[in-house]
Amino acid sequence: MIHQISGGVCAARGFRANGLHCGIRQNKTKKDLALIVSEVPCQAAAVYTTNLVKGAPIIVNREHLKNGVAQAVICNSGIANTCAADGVEKANTMARICAEATGLKEEDIIVGSTGVIGPSLNLDPIRAALPELISGLTADDAGSERAEQGIMTTDTRPKSAAVSFTLSGKECHLGGIAKGSGMIHPNMATMLVFITTDAAISAGMLQKALSTDVQGTFNMTSVDGDTSTNDTCVIMANGMAGNPRVDEEGADFTAFMEALNTVTVSLCRQIAGDGEGATRLIECALSGAKDLKTARKLAKAVVCSSLVKAAMFGADANWGRVLCALGYAGADLDVNRVDVSFRSSAGEVQVCKDGAGIPFSEEEAKKVLLEHEIEIAVACGDGDGCATAWGCDLTYDYVKINGDYRT
Amino acid sequence: MIHQISGGVCAARGFRANGLHCGIRQNKTKKDLALIVSEVPCQAAAVYTTNLVKGAPIIVNREHLKNGVAQAVICNSGIANTCAADGVEKANTMARICAEATGLKEEDIIVGSTGVIGPSLNLDPIRAALPELISGLTADDAGSERAEQGIMTTDTRPKSAAVSFTLSGKECHLGGIAKGSGMIHPNMATMLVFITTDAAISAGMLQKALSTDVQGTFNMTSVDGDTSTNDTCVIMANGMAGNPRVDEEGADFTAFMEALNTVTVSLCRQIAGDGEGATRLIECALSGAKDLKTARKLAKAVVCSSLVKAAMFGADANWGRVLCALGYAGADLDVNRVDVSFRSSAGEVQVCKDGAGIPFSEEEAKKVLLEHEIEIAVACGDGDGCATAWGCDLTYDYVKINGDYRT
Repeated sequence: MIHQISGGVCAARGFRANGLHCGIRQNKTKKDLALIVSEVPCQAAAVYTTNLVKGAPIIVNREHLKNGVAQAVICNSGIANTCAADGVEKANTMARICAEATGLKEEDIIVGSTGVIGPSLNLDPIRAALPELISGLTADDAGSERAEQGIMTTDTRPKSAAVSFTLSGKECHLGGIAKGSGMIHPNMATMLVFITTDAAISAGMLQKALSTDVQGTFNMTSVDGDTSTNDTCVIMANGMAGNPRVDEEGADFTAFMEALNTVTVSLCRQIAGDGEGATRLIECALSGAKDLKTARKLAKAVVCSSLVKAAMFGADANWGRVLCALGYAGADLDVNRVDVSFRSSAGEVQVCKDGAGIPFSEEEAKKVLLEHEIEIAVACGDGDGCATAWGCDLTYDYVKINGDYRT
Repeated sequence: MIHQISGGVCAARGFRANGLHCGIRQNKTKKDLALIVSEVPCQAAAVYTTNLVKGAPIIVNREHLKNGVAQAVICNSGIANTCAADGVEKANTMARICAEATGLKEEDIIVGSTGVIGPSLNLDPIRAALPELISGLTADDAGSERAEQGIMTTDTRPKSAAVSFTLSGKECHLGGIAKGSGMIHPNMATMLVFITTDAAISAGMLQKALSTDVQGTFNMTSVDGDTSTNDTCVIMANGMAGNPRVDEEGADFTAFMEALNTVTVSLCRQIAGDGEGATRLIECALSGAKDLKTARKLAKAVVCSSLVKAAMFGADANWGRVLCALGYAGADLDVNRVDVSFRSSAGEVQVCKDGAGIPFSEEEAKKVLLEHEIEIAVACGDGDGCATAWGCDLTYDYVKINGDYRT
């Protein structure tokens, strides 16, 4: 049984967190530095952006996670530490000064940065803030919230999720925090996700769980189709729940995967729903595709279509755009067997059957589409492949945030 | 020698054109029907959308062009005749009534439609307008212009280009008209291009020329990344220039390809520059890629990036977004050898060298980017592959046109 709980990255035993304003961002009301620390070393795993241009923190984290062990995450917002000539040196130094201040090993520190691409990262504000950052670490909801705020950029709200679950009779906890799209000096929809758990699980199984999970969660989430240079998702397991360590597949691994998926799906919905300028969360629930890979391609094409996104902003039941997106997804599909419905808390309206339009009430459709969470349900007639993709609408504010912030 | 001339589809000998308002569109000031007729049967070729969802006209044209012969094009705007149960029947009837009214063979008629997906196409207004449409055909610039207007939707200006050139000492002409992105009842960035020439060339060589050319022209043009269901480019050659027919590769075929390319590049620039809501034409000129395929992937990723497009709207020299787009293009690239410059009629500013930012004058960059035609010059260090891609900026008006037209 999985129960949703509060606490974010502090939901699991033995994790403390904090966040504060150190001065990388000019606006003093915005936190720009976060720290998450485990009492004991953790088994750890991570996945990174597939962009060939990679932020310097990713290069450092890859080295640090070679042994599958980590104990803390330090992350700044404001500067991405990407495409800067001194990037790797700065990321290494950031880990070292954090290790010195916390008394942990440098190679057990995970570093993160999000913000403008190009500028060199000034470490002085971080160095100066470390004592206060460390002394303020707490293991409660408030600690996680401060960390959530420390990694936010143009996110309008902090993002977290946590669950309790049971492995071999022991109560475990797993929680995460995330930042989505946008920068105060807008540059990049960098996604950062940090997940903690007190479950005992090997680094290998943790990597397996994470790598499998992201295919159906974070990799199915899109705000604007631009894959960031800094996307990172890290998970740390400190074993303090005292369960027999999960070292192989089986009932416990399956239960762990379910708990992880509950948290990651919640974070995906929060990231998509708070995409730059977004007024609506769009969820494409696709069924009946030839196979899983095809289903994912099709669902993602729908939430990535600029025309579908703009139609959702206008609460316009423009189903032809959904069919168009399915048609150019590059996936195998019998377009003459596609049904499309729009759903929300206000009801459900079917708009397309067997690839052609059917009569529907525009008024009813408008009512459905004016809600804040919209499901585009696509049923294909080709097989058993199912997938869900998350996105948001395309709005004036997206253009404003990314276009004319200097004018 | 290729000379730019006026006349669009009427630049070549023996072609007449017309366009008028027949009533498919509600706004009576907007033409919604176009006709292009050759005095004699033409060798013809076409390329169509790769979208699995295809407009009914495409299905009919494929049949009609099996013999490589065509003599006229009839095209309406307002309704796309796509995803309608009676679509193919309507497209066939449209060809038949046009054939009856013009005295041509039904299988020599090319049909086109652009507009809303879903609704059934009412042929009554077309049937009623055919006599006037035919009697008004003229072989001059004005005839081509009326046809250009007849296929426009939310295009803000008609689009045409034409050249004269020489094949084996005979003066030939080649011209085309195009419509770009947007619908009065917005639905789809359907691109339609009709090209005529009086050069004598076989249907096979015409297909070869067109299929080769579009890879580097129309397929490198993007307004919003949504591949339409109705995209069509047709070329008709009536041979009235009297040159020895081009039946194989050689100097004449090369000269023909150059003439064709001059017209298609011009039409691409016109389509991109008049993309929905666009205020700027963005041209990505990419050199030094590993090979041609890689160059095309990279250049297209840059003009398709929502973040690059929004930055160009804001005249913001946000080169990190260009690097980011190159990085996720899915192409082989040494990101540490990439240089980026912004160019326009106001000057040139280099912003990135060897994958990292270099100091530049923001003021100077702003001046360059405030022009209406912007070149993003990307030099890679991997080989000889070069490509150009055309796009436009992402603006409030794009969202307006596609989002809230009902509110």
